[in-house]
Amino acid sequence: MPHIPLEAHLPGITGLLEYRQDSAQPIRELTQLLLRGESTLTEGERELIATLVSHRNECRFCMTAHTAAANILLGESETCELVKQDFETAPVSDKMKALLNVAALVQRSGRDVTPEAIDRAKSAGATDREIHDTVLIAALFCLYNKYVDGLASVTPTDPAFYTYLGERITTHGYNRLKQGYDHLKANA
Amino acid sequence: MPHIPLEAHLPGITGLLEYRQDSAQPIRELTQLLLRGESTLTEGERELIATLVSHRNECRFCMTAHTAAANILLGESETCELVKQDFETAPVSDKMKALLNVAALVQRSGRDVTPEAIDRAKSAGATDREIHDTVLIAALFCLYNKYVDGLASVTPTDPAFYTYLGERITTHGYNRLKQGYDHLKANA
Repeated sequence: MPHIPLEAHLPGITGLLEYRQDSAQPIRELTQLLLRGESTLTEGERELIATLVSHRNECRFCMTAHTAAANILLGESETCELVKQDFETAPVSDKMKALLNVAALVQRSGRDVTPEAIDRAKSAGATDREIHDTVLIAALFCLYNKYVDGLASVTPTDPAFYTYLGERITTHGYNRLKQGYDHLKANA
Repeated sequence: MPHIPLEAHLPGITGLLEYRQDSAQPIRELTQLLLRGESTLTEGERELIATLVSHRNECRFCMTAHTAAANILLGESETCELVKQDFETAPVSDKMKALLNVAALVQRSGRDVTPEAIDRAKSAGATDREIHDTVLIAALFCLYNKYVDGLASVTPTDPAFYTYLGERITTHGYNRLKQGYDHLKANA
């Protein structure tokens, strides 16, 4: 049961974003910019960063939702599973391995990001902007994970819910839809 | 030395917010809403939450800057020091102790926020909205701390810098000033 009264048909982050809509707006904007805005990282690569951080924070809602999004964007579900198990041996580029390593360090603590971890990313071809965005995406998903679990929002168990949410955030992005989350009522 | 090229006269978060101004905007808005917007928590109480989380994350830049802000808002510097040392024995209300406890749990992990910690806050008079905002402020400062330290931004050692920054965020808030951070040049 959530720690504060949230609408029963709005699990995970969805009920929190409806609970306080004024603070939800900049959270949505930041996410849309970082995960769907212009970038030399693909949307799938950025969702892999979000998924890995949520996985390390053991936030089941975010981890499952962004796994669904990553799978849709990548067109297959194996890569994301292997990234969660061990990104060093997963079928991603050396640059992505180095950036996922930076994200994993940020998840633990900003202070754990070493010059060596950054040098590895730069040697593998990562730009300053890609390193910046990786750190900020990882930090943003720590915010999400702590927000979602810190208020004990509901984590659906039906895989169909995450498929629906994954399709939504890969087609509509993270902006608020006119109808809010009313569409989820039929899918919760 | 920062992990990416940041303007030398803009230490801590200030250089990062200038580095990518489009993502800075929603971060500023969210902070302004949560720390300066309408609330039944005072601005000083909200800065105490920000300071405690930054202290627990060992983010020296954020901790020192928000200590300065809290001290200005509270009109004295003892309370904030005692909150950092041990909020359970600090001279704050029982409600604030319970909310600081929730913030400290969020800093560790969202999953660590127990129903008992929430019941304690509610018994001490905390509203659902105050609990929500405490969790989100704590989560936001985890984002800040990881962003600031994850990119190894510069931490000034001169106390005068933090006094200047504390005065700025208690008078102008977290919105972007027209002149950006140019004023810092004279103070960095």
